[in-house]
Amino acid sequence: MNVLDIINHKRLGKILKEQEIEYIIKEYTNGNIPDYQMSSFLMAVLLKGMTEHEVIVFTKYMLESGDRIDLDSLTHVVDKHSTGGVGDKTTLIVGAIVAACGCRVAKMSGRGLGHTGGTIDKLESIPGMKVHLSESEFLKQVQDIGIAIVSQTSNLVPADKKIYALRDVTGTVESMALIASSIMSKKIASGSKNLVIDVKIGSGALIKTKKEARELAKLMIKIGKSYGIRVICLLTNMDTPLGNCIGNSLEVEEAIGVLKNKIDGPLRDLCIEIASYMVSLGQDIPYEEARVKVIMNLMNGNAYRKFVSFVKAQKGSLIFLPKSKYVYEIKSDRNGYINKIDALSLGKISMELGAGRVKINDKIDYGAGIVLNQQLGQYVHKGDILMYLHTSKKIDNLELGLDSFVIEKRKKVNTDIIYDVMK
Amino acid sequence: MNVLDIINHKRLGKILKEQEIEYIIKEYTNGNIPDYQMSSFLMAVLLKGMTEHEVIVFTKYMLESGDRIDLDSLTHVVDKHSTGGVGDKTTLIVGAIVAACGCRVAKMSGRGLGHTGGTIDKLESIPGMKVHLSESEFLKQVQDIGIAIVSQTSNLVPADKKIYALRDVTGTVESMALIASSIMSKKIASGSKNLVIDVKIGSGALIKTKKEARELAKLMIKIGKSYGIRVICLLTNMDTPLGNCIGNSLEVEEAIGVLKNKIDGPLRDLCIEIASYMVSLGQDIPYEEARVKVIMNLMNGNAYRKFVSFVKAQKGSLIFLPKSKYVYEIKSDRNGYINKIDALSLGKISMELGAGRVKINDKIDYGAGIVLNQQLGQYVHKGDILMYLHTSKKIDNLELGLDSFVIEKRKKVNTDIIYDVMK
Repeated sequence: MNVLDIINHKRLGKILKEQEIEYIIKEYTNGNIPDYQMSSFLMAVLLKGMTEHEVIVFTKYMLESGDRIDLDSLTHVVDKHSTGGVGDKTTLIVGAIVAACGCRVAKMSGRGLGHTGGTIDKLESIPGMKVHLSESEFLKQVQDIGIAIVSQTSNLVPADKKIYALRDVTGTVESMALIASSIMSKKIASGSKNLVIDVKIGSGALIKTKKEARELAKLMIKIGKSYGIRVICLLTNMDTPLGNCIGNSLEVEEAIGVLKNKIDGPLRDLCIEIASYMVSLGQDIPYEEARVKVIMNLMNGNAYRKFVSFVKAQKGSLIFLPKSKYVYEIKSDRNGYINKIDALSLGKISMELGAGRVKINDKIDYGAGIVLNQQLGQYVHKGDILMYLHTSKKIDNLELGLDSFVIEKRKKVNTDIIYDVMK
Repeated sequence: MNVLDIINHKRLGKILKEQEIEYIIKEYTNGNIPDYQMSSFLMAVLLKGMTEHEVIVFTKYMLESGDRIDLDSLTHVVDKHSTGGVGDKTTLIVGAIVAACGCRVAKMSGRGLGHTGGTIDKLESIPGMKVHLSESEFLKQVQDIGIAIVSQTSNLVPADKKIYALRDVTGTVESMALIASSIMSKKIASGSKNLVIDVKIGSGALIKTKKEARELAKLMIKIGKSYGIRVICLLTNMDTPLGNCIGNSLEVEEAIGVLKNKIDGPLRDLCIEIASYMVSLGQDIPYEEARVKVIMNLMNGNAYRKFVSFVKAQKGSLIFLPKSKYVYEIKSDRNGYINKIDALSLGKISMELGAGRVKINDKIDYGAGIVLNQQLGQYVHKGDILMYLHTSKKIDNLELGLDSFVIEKRKKVNTDIIYDVMK
């Protein structure tokens, strides 16, 4: 077996043999294939694609590179994943809801890099919160209170860790085949047999078009099937940030607001949908029945109480969430309808304010971020506050982020949240 | 400027700006862009292509990475290049012919790697032959006897040296855009304003189809034009080895055979064509007039005498050319017409016999190689000798290379040598 032959086969658009895929993943993970060969291979994969069968085989050998967690001792286990967006704090909310409904959530999450946040960073903004548990602590907590969220262990699909780091710096992230095998290998290794995936589409997401999202969803469902895992994909809008808050402790506060039934709108609606599909899978009941259960457990405060006991179990304290030094007001420079609030540009601004990392070792300002003061489609007057910037940095430019808002005379706005559900 | 943006632009099929091309070539050559980013960029270039203008700009910054040789003090200067084939010793023959016709050949050549040989290795098989001359020695020899062939200096397009080495190990050699800029940057840096390029097509060549060859030729002619260099491309057949000999000293002997008018056939025919176009360019005379001159100087022994004085000027001695220890006979296992003699597979066998390098530091057995005993299209009987293998290694398999010959009941063979001439 020769790495150059494998690169050339894919470059010429051929279908790779199982042994070729096995070879390139194993030998790259072991350090026997240099980065410069892997990166040209990955670019060839991105531009020439892989068949469904190739992606399933690719996922298989990703998975074989590390350990798998066995959750078979637990019942009603269900997991979720989001392909990443700006202001996406759904895991915090739906985790609590579905645990309150009697499902078990044994979740491994990642940190954020670039303009999208990571659940682990959000949890770490809670003072005292532990995100590293031993496997037995982790399983016990899931058994006892129905939910635990921890940081991915270093041996969860090491092949993916190495390949993803390379894709990130070689322009090879945006391959549906590679995204599907990256997500699914981690999820399969995490042990749940039921999985709801929120495939985010739009300016603030990795995936820009519905066509790509459908392709990705189809692939992930197929991969899941080949491992006996039931996968439901929600295709959702990420042109606009999800909810009003972007930034770690700000998002925790917003999540609590939803769980306390103080906030409604698109964020709450999406959480109810995701949670309903999760409960339907985890308890093997029809979607409609699950939805009633979800709304009931949200409305009666069970979900909020579940969140509090989850935070307490992982030693966190919600009394004093961190706050940044300064809050700046950004005001509208005109009258009109807010036709767009650009998720990507606000995600980048939030990162600059201190809420995210540019490089992997950057420190996060947990209180930093953005609080939107207006909704999509709303009419604003010149001078109205559009958003608040929370940061510990001094800011001179009081028009920072103003161009993230498209404000026009005539209202023309897409307020859809869920485009499609695929299973 | 950011290398990831440049990779992404090319990945998405965009046309790169001049500054982007300048940045990626300069910073890669300076060591500021790592191999793994350059290789994914090169794969994107291979699969998405470059416009003519992009290739011209790419060539410009390749060229700017190193020194350029000034040949303006010399008259009637003409250069040639071959894209590389098996048994291609044309430089030795046409160099002597065109110098005998009054042209000046100031040639820098490379070493061989893989299944194709390099002119410098062939010259080094001549005992005593010097292939490193100072610039003043080099120019003086060209002035005095009309020809000098030396090894490329290390500062001849260092960007190409580094990029080519990376392409070689990342499956990104076969991009017409990258091949064109690699060849043309070296040729422009070498200083000649007249250039004949032999674009080889077929199993033993880098370029497999006439379509690709035409694309490459067109690009090289365009690049030449933008630097005031007249380029003529011959598109020629490399399904079959060129001539009967493959291997370094064996090819020197065959070249001498042609120059002494002892050998005719496709090799001689091609050399006359290349030499005629070179003389036509170098002396600015019509092709037909140049052709008469070429044939005259070949027939009357001037070309052979020029070769002898060229070898003598570079301290070589033709008296005892190296020979390998053993000669093995490979015999036909059937009756029939030789419909194919596969250049690629014989090139690889010759390399295994010791005539070439697998890795850059491998030592060459200068006497090793193959001497064909039959012509394409000839009828052979079972037991007839097809070829002789010259090597210093012991060989047990007396059918080695037999499958390079396609021998069939009915004659169906392509004996074309020159497919097309483009200018």
